[in-house]
Amino acid sequence: MTEHKQPATIVIFGASGDLTRRKLIPALFRLCRQNLLPAPFQVVGFAVTEWDTAEFRRQMRGGVDEFAREPFSEAEWQTFAERLHYTPGGFTEAADFAHLRQFLEATEGELSHRLYYLATPPRFFADIIAQLGAAGMAQDVYCETGSMAHVPGSAPGQTAWRRVIIEKPFGRDLASAQALNQAVHAVLAEHQIYRIDHYLAKETVQNILVFRFANTMFEPIWNRNYIDHVQITVAEAVDVGHRAGYYDQAGVLRDMFQNHLMQLLALVGMEPPASFDANAIRDEKVKTMRAVRPLTPTELANQTVRAQYEGYGATAGVVANSQTPTYAALELYIDNWRWQGVPFYLRSGKALAQKTSEIIIQFKRPPHIMFPVSLDGPLRSNYLALCIQPHEGFHQRFEVKVPGREIAMRPVDMDFHYDDAFVPDSVPEAYETLLLNALEGDATLFTRSDGIEAAWRVIDSVLQGWETDDAPPLTTYRPGSWGPAAADELLGRNGRFWRHGCLDT
Amino acid sequence: MTEHKQPATIVIFGASGDLTRRKLIPALFRLCRQNLLPAPFQVVGFAVTEWDTAEFRRQMRGGVDEFAREPFSEAEWQTFAERLHYTPGGFTEAADFAHLRQFLEATEGELSHRLYYLATPPRFFADIIAQLGAAGMAQDVYCETGSMAHVPGSAPGQTAWRRVIIEKPFGRDLASAQALNQAVHAVLAEHQIYRIDHYLAKETVQNILVFRFANTMFEPIWNRNYIDHVQITVAEAVDVGHRAGYYDQAGVLRDMFQNHLMQLLALVGMEPPASFDANAIRDEKVKTMRAVRPLTPTELANQTVRAQYEGYGATAGVVANSQTPTYAALELYIDNWRWQGVPFYLRSGKALAQKTSEIIIQFKRPPHIMFPVSLDGPLRSNYLALCIQPHEGFHQRFEVKVPGREIAMRPVDMDFHYDDAFVPDSVPEAYETLLLNALEGDATLFTRSDGIEAAWRVIDSVLQGWETDDAPPLTTYRPGSWGPAAADELLGRNGRFWRHGCLDT
Repeated sequence: MTEHKQPATIVIFGASGDLTRRKLIPALFRLCRQNLLPAPFQVVGFAVTEWDTAEFRRQMRGGVDEFAREPFSEAEWQTFAERLHYTPGGFTEAADFAHLRQFLEATEGELSHRLYYLATPPRFFADIIAQLGAAGMAQDVYCETGSMAHVPGSAPGQTAWRRVIIEKPFGRDLASAQALNQAVHAVLAEHQIYRIDHYLAKETVQNILVFRFANTMFEPIWNRNYIDHVQITVAEAVDVGHRAGYYDQAGVLRDMFQNHLMQLLALVGMEPPASFDANAIRDEKVKTMRAVRPLTPTELANQTVRAQYEGYGATAGVVANSQTPTYAALELYIDNWRWQGVPFYLRSGKALAQKTSEIIIQFKRPPHIMFPVSLDGPLRSNYLALCIQPHEGFHQRFEVKVPGREIAMRPVDMDFHYDDAFVPDSVPEAYETLLLNALEGDATLFTRSDGIEAAWRVIDSVLQGWETDDAPPLTTYRPGSWGPAAADELLGRNGRFWRHGCLDT
Repeated sequence: MTEHKQPATIVIFGASGDLTRRKLIPALFRLCRQNLLPAPFQVVGFAVTEWDTAEFRRQMRGGVDEFAREPFSEAEWQTFAERLHYTPGGFTEAADFAHLRQFLEATEGELSHRLYYLATPPRFFADIIAQLGAAGMAQDVYCETGSMAHVPGSAPGQTAWRRVIIEKPFGRDLASAQALNQAVHAVLAEHQIYRIDHYLAKETVQNILVFRFANTMFEPIWNRNYIDHVQITVAEAVDVGHRAGYYDQAGVLRDMFQNHLMQLLALVGMEPPASFDANAIRDEKVKTMRAVRPLTPTELANQTVRAQYEGYGATAGVVANSQTPTYAALELYIDNWRWQGVPFYLRSGKALAQKTSEIIIQFKRPPHIMFPVSLDGPLRSNYLALCIQPHEGFHQRFEVKVPGREIAMRPVDMDFHYDDAFVPDSVPEAYETLLLNALEGDATLFTRSDGIEAAWRVIDSVLQGWETDDAPPLTTYRPGSWGPAAADELLGRNGRFWRHGCLDT
């Protein structure tokens, strides 16, 4: 917590865009008021829009008026606003970057850390990084001796870092992600790069890791010997709405699977890291994702389901006769010692019955039923539900005897909800965490190039397969349902079924 | 459920005593109203008290008026009362047993099953059984061909059974229990004998068995690899009260450990039975109790604690300078593959802070703490609490992350209570279950001779050891406390502590 108390500049590319106004500036303002930002710090906006600093401050004030989560005083805003600057420029214009550099060196005055935030459309990511490199602004600055002595906490041999936060999406398939990684690595070292995937809040990631690795009851049974299968559901109740133009180009695999569902799969499936360190954790996540077996053509037809909700084709922004899936279900296998033969069923879709993100760990049946009852029929053995949202917590389903003379059993739940045990709303907003983590050099929540590519490798094989004759038919489902019948059959043919372990249904 | 619908007689020895009036007759009356008794059935009271049948019915009516759990009609009582008979006699008088036999043969009319209930003080158990044998009333009656054809459901070759329920206590040490077993076996086969230990209701026993063996999450970690130790607590808030005369002769080991705590130890420690059958279950329980390691003199001093609550000596009925313990704590080990090296801490006492019966399965610490926190200090890892009473259910303690920027953990609970999930009071009263089980030939809840002796063998070694110089000092504890400091030290010297996993404290 000491490093980020040294001077730093945050440069936002795309500073006139929606993300800056809605998320980044309100987050920075809140961090400033909590005294969590570097000292001194400044924010420099950069975009093609022909604003000046006064206009930038005025626009950002509109942003905090609309989006700040708490009331604030005029004095607080003034203190913060004085730190905001703006310099217009094009993302491919060398002259504009030269000007930006002059501006920074003039305003920073002395050597300072620097965080570049790429809040632009993805097509500019490579250009901006190339320009930063060409302008000599991308390299960490190593101070020989004493030149940073005036900086609190600094010492000879200290580095003034340069870090880059890259917004999502990072590529739209494996090839484009690899190309972007190559462009980025031509200029930056991996430790300088912070790729956003903020679907998983730090709390959620840490909650899953603590649940698995700070307890001793679960890890011994967390493997193929005891687990029948795993279900990962990320269901949205909303339809594509005004995002139809973007969505019709992306589809559910790019929009949800490559990032969100693969992240959850990795957190559930990973081996215990040796330490709570960004690289140790990411090493294990990448190992797990890399062990996911690519699907053969036959498997593609049998183990994947794609569907579109009824009425999607008529949405403004969707192309005629669109084949874009708004729902997908995959049956994946992780080829390693722990998970061999255990299906991981992943599903996600829009316009579903309820919003929920959850993971079901479905255990096997007891090896022998000593009681004079039948436990045949649909799988009715224990499961654990890791509930991500809307109500974060854990549910455990197990069998008890129904009171009475006869032997009969009934499944019941033990559960825990964070909201019941802790004061709600103590969780910081995602962008506050992400900005602070990048300033502190904690990359746990950001994806590494190998992680991005490992996830794309899995999803790409499905994306590509769905372009061939091996693709399963594109089916439909009723908005407000739990998806197409084909997804139920995917599990049903092995006597399994989708669970809603976190919803009160 | 068909067998007990054949004719049967229930003979109660000690029919003028408190147990008959308070428990047995109200239980039989309720079973009768629920149409769960044999048809036809009769109850024959036998005792030295010079009652006749009319007086017996009058006395028993007083019993149901006072102790029946539900209102009933006069007609219901009359239907039941007509089945009640009484024949006076001495427990050692051959002539009286001959008279009883005549009475039974006259009233039964035809061959009928017969259940003898020994509701007398324990000193008469051997005498009564000897008299039953001498009078030719103890043997099952085997029907050659056709002689029971008039009995519904009977067939040639059928047996009219004779069973004996023996009230507790069964012996006051290993030698007396063995002697009583010998006397019993001189007359009866083991399958005819139903020894009462009704502390564990059928529901409780079945709940524990279902919890362990109908679920797959618990059994894989139910062993020395994952469990640090087990705690079994049977705490009473009441003091000895009006039972001081009896209690001062017995002490806590005979009163609670030999039966209740050893039963719980067996249910928690046993291997999975192959079937839900009285003998299969009792086989496994006996195996477990037999594997409990006897204590050497040194171990006796270090692994046992005995104490008396302050003021016990002044209770009416307690002998001067009594050394009878009202509290004990034992550290026992089960020498088998599953439990080698895992301490089982058993404690029970009177005049403690709260009434509770519970079992704590304390798991080991995680093998490696990957998080930047310390989990040192008192053991703070997962445990399971099996709550027997007053609120039957299960609690599971595990660690979650405290929301916020820093990594900090807090133990939280998932729990399940039968009362929350099922309609309370659907559980039948203990004596109803026991009588019905004996009529049905289900001996699960009754102890077998080898089980009685295996439990006595363990307890006897402590009882005898406490008579020697190896005994730990008899300490005292404050009424309303959780027992003596020595019991805390018993766990504390290994960094452990007693838990109250089922109480809201």
